[in-house]
Amino acid sequence: MQLFLGIDGGGTGCRAAVADAAGVVRGRAEAGPANIASDPQGAADNILRAATAALDAAGGGQVVAAGLGLAGANAAGAADRLRGALPYRRVAVVTDAITAVKGALGTGDGIVAALGTGSVFAAQRGGTIRQIGGRGLVLGDEASGAWIGRAILSAALRATDGYAPMTPLLSALLAEAGGADGVVALSLRARPVDLAAFAPRVVQSDDPAALSVMEQARKDVIAAVSLLAGNDDLPVVFLGGLGPVFAAGMADRFRIQTAQGTALDGALMLAREAA
Amino acid sequence: MQLFLGIDGGGTGCRAAVADAAGVVRGRAEAGPANIASDPQGAADNILRAATAALDAAGGGQVVAAGLGLAGANAAGAADRLRGALPYRRVAVVTDAITAVKGALGTGDGIVAALGTGSVFAAQRGGTIRQIGGRGLVLGDEASGAWIGRAILSAALRATDGYAPMTPLLSALLAEAGGADGVVALSLRARPVDLAAFAPRVVQSDDPAALSVMEQARKDVIAAVSLLAGNDDLPVVFLGGLGPVFAAGMADRFRIQTAQGTALDGALMLAREAA
Repeated sequence: MQLFLGIDGGGTGCRAAVADAAGVVRGRAEAGPANIASDPQGAADNILRAATAALDAAGGGQVVAAGLGLAGANAAGAADRLRGALPYRRVAVVTDAITAVKGALGTGDGIVAALGTGSVFAAQRGGTIRQIGGRGLVLGDEASGAWIGRAILSAALRATDGYAPMTPLLSALLAEAGGADGVVALSLRARPVDLAAFAPRVVQSDDPAALSVMEQARKDVIAAVSLLAGNDDLPVVFLGGLGPVFAAGMADRFRIQTAQGTALDGALMLAREAA
Repeated sequence: MQLFLGIDGGGTGCRAAVADAAGVVRGRAEAGPANIASDPQGAADNILRAATAALDAAGGGQVVAAGLGLAGANAAGAADRLRGALPYRRVAVVTDAITAVKGALGTGDGIVAALGTGSVFAAQRGGTIRQIGGRGLVLGDEASGAWIGRAILSAALRATDGYAPMTPLLSALLAEAGGADGVVALSLRARPVDLAAFAPRVVQSDDPAALSVMEQARKDVIAAVSLLAGNDDLPVVFLGGLGPVFAAGMADRFRIQTAQGTALDGALMLAREAA
C-alpha cells in the first residue's frame, strides 16, 4: 500500500500519522521530543521511531512522501541535515507553525493565532503563508504564556519598588517566591515553560495587575492579527492553550473559526503536496 | 597601624583599598571576579587575595573593620556565608549598589542612577538608602545597556514582520546577524553583556528606531528618578558607562551632580561605619 507520512514534532514530543491515497489515516504513533535545532540526532531518532511505529500500526506499506512540521526547522541547516537522515524519497520539512496553519485552515484563506508557551501568527492567502512573531521570549512571543508569566512577575517587582500599587495577586506571588529577591532568583533560572506556568493564574484572575497584563496581551494579539489581515476580512483561528482565552473576547472584532484539523493533519497535507 | 578595608566586587573583578584612621588610602590592589551569589568560594578567594595584596602595599597593619560592596550580596544567605569566610572582626557586606551610592553621595542626600550593563536607582536621605530596580534583564533593568541592545534587536524583528518601517540601523543589524533567524539565534545565547554590546551604536545613532528606543529608555530613567525624588529637589548623580548619555539630556529636569567618589570609597565609608 502506498502511504503518506505526516510528522508533527516539537520540544515535548512528536506525533506521526500515515494516510492512504484517499486520505484515510491508517496508523498513528508517538515518540519523544523532536526539536531539530537543539537536538538534531535525538530528533531524527524520535521521528524515525514514531514513523516506524505508525507504519507498523497501519500494517506496513510504502512511504511515497513525508511531510514534517518541526520546531527548530527555521534554524540554518537544520532541515537539510534532517532530510539526509530520513530514508524517504520525497521529504518536505517546515516549521510546526506552517503545519499548524495548514491543519487549521486547510487550503482556505485565513489567519492563525497560536498562543501557547510561545506565540506565532500567520496568514494563508492562495496557499501562500506569511508568518510573523514566533521569535522566542527574549525578543518577542508577545501575549504568549511565557510572556504573560514574565509580565506578572515584572509587575510584582515594580509594585515592590513603588511604581504601581501592590495587589493581592502580586503580593501572593512575591510571598510564594520568598520576596523580590526570590522572584529575581526564579527569573534567572526560568525557562519559557516555567514562566508560562504562571499564566493560568493571570488569565483567570480579576486582580488589577492581572487585568493590566491581559489588556496589553490582547492589544498585542489584535495588532498581530490586524497586521496580517490588512484590509481583508479573513477568518481567524485561535490555537494553543491560550487560544480560547483570547478568542473569547474578540468575537466582535474578528470572524473567529474553529480549526479544521491539527498540525498533524497539516503535515499529511504537506506530504501529499510533496508527492 | 590600624586600617580600614574596603572592597568593591562584581562579576568582572574586585578592587581593594586600605585606609588609615585619617581616611588616607595606604594601599590598593585588584583581583578576579567576586559575585558571592554565583560563585561564593571563588569570590571569597578573590576578595582575600585583593585584601592581602592591598595590606601588603600599605606595608602591613591591622584591619579594624571591613566594608564590602558586592554583586550578589542580596541573594539569600550569601552575605552571611562570606562573613564566615573572612578573618576580620567587624565585617559589613552590602550590594555594590549601596557602596556606589555611598561613594557618589558621601553622607549627603541625593539620588544615584547607575546605568551600565544593568540598571539600578537609589535615593539616600539622612543616611538611609532606598534602592529600586537592579532586578536583572529578564524582569527589569530598564534603560540599561542590555535593555537597549535587546530593544533594538526586538525592533529589528518587528520591522521584519512589518509592524514598523525598516530603518538603516535595523537593516544593518539584521544583515550582520544573518537575517531574522540569526538575530533569534543570537538572542538565545546572549548574556546581558552581549546585548549591551549593541548599546553604543544605538546611543550614538540618529536612526529613527534608535531614537525611539532611547526615548523609551529616557522615559524609564525619568520615571525611576522621579519616583525616588517624590516632592524633594534632590541632586542626581549618573553613574555607569551610560550615565553621561542620560545625564546630558536631563540637566533641565534634574539637578545633576558629579560623583564625590567611587564605590570603593563607599566601601571604605562602610568599613568606618562598621568599626
